[in-house]
Amino acid sequence: MENLLSHIQSVEDLRKLSIDQLPQLCDELRQFIIEQTAKHPGHLGSSLGVVELTVALHYVFDTPNDKLIWDVGHQAYSHKILTGRKDLFSTNRCYGGISGFPRREESEFDAFGAGHSSTSISAALGMAVAAKMSGNEKRNHIAVIGDGAIGGGMAFEAMNQAPYRNVNMLVILNDNKISIDKSTGAMSKYLVSITTSPSYNRLKSRLWNFFTFRTNHPNRITNFFSKMGNSVKGWLFGGSNWFQSLGYRYFGPADGHDVVYLVKTLQDLKKLPGLKLFHVLTIKGKGLEAAEQNQTRYHAPGKFDPTTGKIIQTEVGTQPPKYQDVFGNTILELARQDEKVVGITPAMATGCSLTIMDAEFPNRVFDVGIAEQHAVTFSAGLASEGYVTFCNIYSSFLQRGYDQVIHDVALQKIPVIFCIDRAGLVGEDGATHHGAFDLAFLRCIPDLIIASPLNEHELRNLMVTAYHNAKRQGLPFVIRYPRGRGVLTDWHNDPEILPIGKGQLLRNGEKVLLLTLGPLGNSVTNVLDLLEKEGIRAGHYDIRFLKPLEEDALEKFASQYSVWITVEDGTEVGGLFSEIAEFIERRNSGRNCPDSPKLLHIALPDRFIPHGDLANLYREVGFDEQHIADTIRNAWDNAPN
Amino acid sequence: MENLLSHIQSVEDLRKLSIDQLPQLCDELRQFIIEQTAKHPGHLGSSLGVVELTVALHYVFDTPNDKLIWDVGHQAYSHKILTGRKDLFSTNRCYGGISGFPRREESEFDAFGAGHSSTSISAALGMAVAAKMSGNEKRNHIAVIGDGAIGGGMAFEAMNQAPYRNVNMLVILNDNKISIDKSTGAMSKYLVSITTSPSYNRLKSRLWNFFTFRTNHPNRITNFFSKMGNSVKGWLFGGSNWFQSLGYRYFGPADGHDVVYLVKTLQDLKKLPGLKLFHVLTIKGKGLEAAEQNQTRYHAPGKFDPTTGKIIQTEVGTQPPKYQDVFGNTILELARQDEKVVGITPAMATGCSLTIMDAEFPNRVFDVGIAEQHAVTFSAGLASEGYVTFCNIYSSFLQRGYDQVIHDVALQKIPVIFCIDRAGLVGEDGATHHGAFDLAFLRCIPDLIIASPLNEHELRNLMVTAYHNAKRQGLPFVIRYPRGRGVLTDWHNDPEILPIGKGQLLRNGEKVLLLTLGPLGNSVTNVLDLLEKEGIRAGHYDIRFLKPLEEDALEKFASQYSVWITVEDGTEVGGLFSEIAEFIERRNSGRNCPDSPKLLHIALPDRFIPHGDLANLYREVGFDEQHIADTIRNAWDNAPN
Repeated sequence: MENLLSHIQSVEDLRKLSIDQLPQLCDELRQFIIEQTAKHPGHLGSSLGVVELTVALHYVFDTPNDKLIWDVGHQAYSHKILTGRKDLFSTNRCYGGISGFPRREESEFDAFGAGHSSTSISAALGMAVAAKMSGNEKRNHIAVIGDGAIGGGMAFEAMNQAPYRNVNMLVILNDNKISIDKSTGAMSKYLVSITTSPSYNRLKSRLWNFFTFRTNHPNRITNFFSKMGNSVKGWLFGGSNWFQSLGYRYFGPADGHDVVYLVKTLQDLKKLPGLKLFHVLTIKGKGLEAAEQNQTRYHAPGKFDPTTGKIIQTEVGTQPPKYQDVFGNTILELARQDEKVVGITPAMATGCSLTIMDAEFPNRVFDVGIAEQHAVTFSAGLASEGYVTFCNIYSSFLQRGYDQVIHDVALQKIPVIFCIDRAGLVGEDGATHHGAFDLAFLRCIPDLIIASPLNEHELRNLMVTAYHNAKRQGLPFVIRYPRGRGVLTDWHNDPEILPIGKGQLLRNGEKVLLLTLGPLGNSVTNVLDLLEKEGIRAGHYDIRFLKPLEEDALEKFASQYSVWITVEDGTEVGGLFSEIAEFIERRNSGRNCPDSPKLLHIALPDRFIPHGDLANLYREVGFDEQHIADTIRNAWDNAPN
Repeated sequence: MENLLSHIQSVEDLRKLSIDQLPQLCDELRQFIIEQTAKHPGHLGSSLGVVELTVALHYVFDTPNDKLIWDVGHQAYSHKILTGRKDLFSTNRCYGGISGFPRREESEFDAFGAGHSSTSISAALGMAVAAKMSGNEKRNHIAVIGDGAIGGGMAFEAMNQAPYRNVNMLVILNDNKISIDKSTGAMSKYLVSITTSPSYNRLKSRLWNFFTFRTNHPNRITNFFSKMGNSVKGWLFGGSNWFQSLGYRYFGPADGHDVVYLVKTLQDLKKLPGLKLFHVLTIKGKGLEAAEQNQTRYHAPGKFDPTTGKIIQTEVGTQPPKYQDVFGNTILELARQDEKVVGITPAMATGCSLTIMDAEFPNRVFDVGIAEQHAVTFSAGLASEGYVTFCNIYSSFLQRGYDQVIHDVALQKIPVIFCIDRAGLVGEDGATHHGAFDLAFLRCIPDLIIASPLNEHELRNLMVTAYHNAKRQGLPFVIRYPRGRGVLTDWHNDPEILPIGKGQLLRNGEKVLLLTLGPLGNSVTNVLDLLEKEGIRAGHYDIRFLKPLEEDALEKFASQYSVWITVEDGTEVGGLFSEIAEFIERRNSGRNCPDSPKLLHIALPDRFIPHGDLANLYREVGFDEQHIADTIRNAWDNAPN
């Protein structure tokens, strides 16, 4: 049989195919994704789940004129391949290559960029309102959103507004019962109930067949729906439908892997103006058995064998552990010692390794789903009742819970412990996922303790310190650490309680002082070991706490070191560099300070950092040891004595 | 008739009353609130609406052991009066007095503080889970949330999680059809439909009477509900109920002004374990006719006549306008010139004066309800389609849309224009409402333009500048300005397009330079006028743009002024002061700068600022002209030549 995919360079090519050819194209597309993603790791499971849906959408709708918006966007591989990026797909998520998410800069088919969840309906509604105001009543606006993402509060805000606006919008609920970990919450339970209710489905499919396929008069269904009053519709289609009660015309549930059925249904829906919700059932990882069997593991599996699905373990043996696993094991140890220890995560139990505690104490681990706002304030409620509450959120996702950190936690001085995972650059997920801003946006909040560990021992020390601080009703405590592996193979220390607001001197020196926060300090240590052989004897202080600032230590350094260099894996605007600059200016003001140090900094530049492997990204932003060495050498050579 | 309220100092006193006495108590309480709030302005309408509900809740439940959480909290006046704060109530919202919102520091009856909307269910759920884990199965957890607040995404996240946790929680939906402005969205429309459906109500009330009041065996209803399967319940109580589909036992709608009925119902609900939603209909402003008639105006009316309700106009004539009205009139002018101009507000149309445009262009003004996240991304959708989108959000509420500003707007360089109202200190609403952090949390975001106007003319200039910037697809643009009146009576200038990133020299001088951002610059002008008579000839530069920074102007000032003083109405951490400190350090690094200026600052201290009148707050934080003068005089005297 002739290969179809090889002839598809654009959606025009796709639309030339007959409907009968689409199942074959889907098979080829799925195989292409499996083969490519086996070599070039990416978000496999979600993308395999929507192959048929993607083909059907581009086949039926007039993209890019019609606006197609993918929520989160990690499922958009078929979309990218069909819209002119097939030949670039081997560069997916690579430095300089195409992004793993939709990006407006990349293609006119990427109507709205994403990376975070639950934004698609708001954006689509904005575009739909724009089209309506511009008199463009025919344009279609399609938001494809998963059953996990639709539980995010932002999606509900948009769902709640849309029926009020009388626009042309189709929300496609891609229901695979799983976000990354299994979906939680009443909504997902409800979706199961409407999916499995036999009477409901029987009724639906019978009506559907009657009005659509048997008549072969698509206009009839349009007219029929347009004329039906709400009460009649409610009776026919099952009055208990949650979406209908909000004002959506609900269709489904439909088999999301029957591309012919999807095409015919979408053709009908396209003719039906107004606000529609189409509920599509898909299988995450569809077509690769191993991925279907273990959907969480194959969300983003890394390299694997494209035939068997077997994941290729590139790293074994005595490597240092991931910070995530150190977190997971340490909270488990604390949980064993104290039944008041609880763990909260918004849908990232596997990613943050809270699964380690969950295996032993499932009743004290709360995966609240994609709901960062709720996660923070729910944690505040628990902590206000004396529970030692570790709330683990990725840095860039905490942006979603920002008001709650200020309003519900810090302002009330409730000792929630925030473990901020994925701080600093994350690599291939790119700009939407880099934890670039947390140091800046948290530092301005009063009454927060903010720390970052140098290594795995320090992470454990900080967690134990935060635990004891919470037990004596201290201030809320933030511990931020990066994605990936640490530096110590013997990570399992006997953790000690650290003094809050005190750093540690790693190396005594002269003239130049490195003030580091977090794991980049290890690169500085490596560099200073080498530079010592050149006679450069710079000092190194791991400041450990961004807040409160250890002013007395800095005061002493002012007479010892004439040049300070701050090093942090966050933006140069508002974080450690700013804080030390503020300190120096406060110190200088009102008196003459002959010993006022000069201040250099190594930090993320004030721009969005792209995606790619960490080595390339580190080189781009100057986090590589070469650049760190050059900066220190230069400072040393120019430092006043 | 003997006065009852005068004998009520605590909830114990309340619980000694017979149920028949409660209507009288409610009347007295309502009268007390009217009389007090007439003299000491506050949130009148919401508090009058929940008098009966509050009495019934404290009468039936064992507060403070049972946890009662008020969403937003501005309706909690009866609550405060009944829980030991009657004699302090005349200090409500005053500097040093009790807060207008629940505060944990103020009373053990204030189980969770608030001020922002939609947090109560998350907090109550956290406490309920804590009680369950602690084996305290009997404790009750009650969240009282309005029909506006329940549309906020955060509330949905919590609603969605609660049925999953199998806890003892009662959500009371206080349905008055209005948040501050009229509630919008599908949810509020839905609430009207279930409230007015005659068949639904008939069924409900008949069953309710049968099972509760006629039998006089409250346990029966408990058993009855416990034993009923979901399907039977669905049939009996109307299967289409939105809350039931999520897993809540739904009760209502009930007359929220019948205190006896409320008490009896709550007594029954108290005996029913698990998750319940009680839908209560109330009238905002109940008991003061003028307030019932104009609910938006009487949300927080200022001083008024307690008998007639007539609002006392203390200010008339030739005062400068509010910044809000300047915004409202200016966007109207732009909207008349260009049909692509649209305005967005999350439930603050009156507060931000977008009502002025709405009166003429209702189809181009979008009040999206209490939904800041959606407001931002919906704006991004509109702006991506070429609409010039003014998204008006209060500074402290923008904390709710923070991720959306980063992820959906800045990262995609979509030219949304954010008008950030209530920046700086807001006065009586206090710590939850002060716009203290926006300069810091916005400055760290790449690709944002951030400006603050000195006065009304500058606000108009900046709006027109932002408009033209958006028309040529420039970067997203933030304009932040305070609550209240400006300084110019002839505010209606012919606005001019300003160069982006350029400030204005207000006064040439020597030795000391005032670098101001925003309206505090007017106080500096006043002070410098006076100081000139003392021979102090400090310079004054209105920097106007926080971002991008005007480095070339600063470079020139470095040789002219040896001491710089930044002045900003935001936190001293991360805003203008930090930015100038960073600039000075960057400038110093790598070379010897004999002309490096010293840097002082006037900004909000790094702590939460309490509530009170602005004069007292300004004195507390050093924004008063006396302190500004002392700072300048001191700098002048100590400045090197």
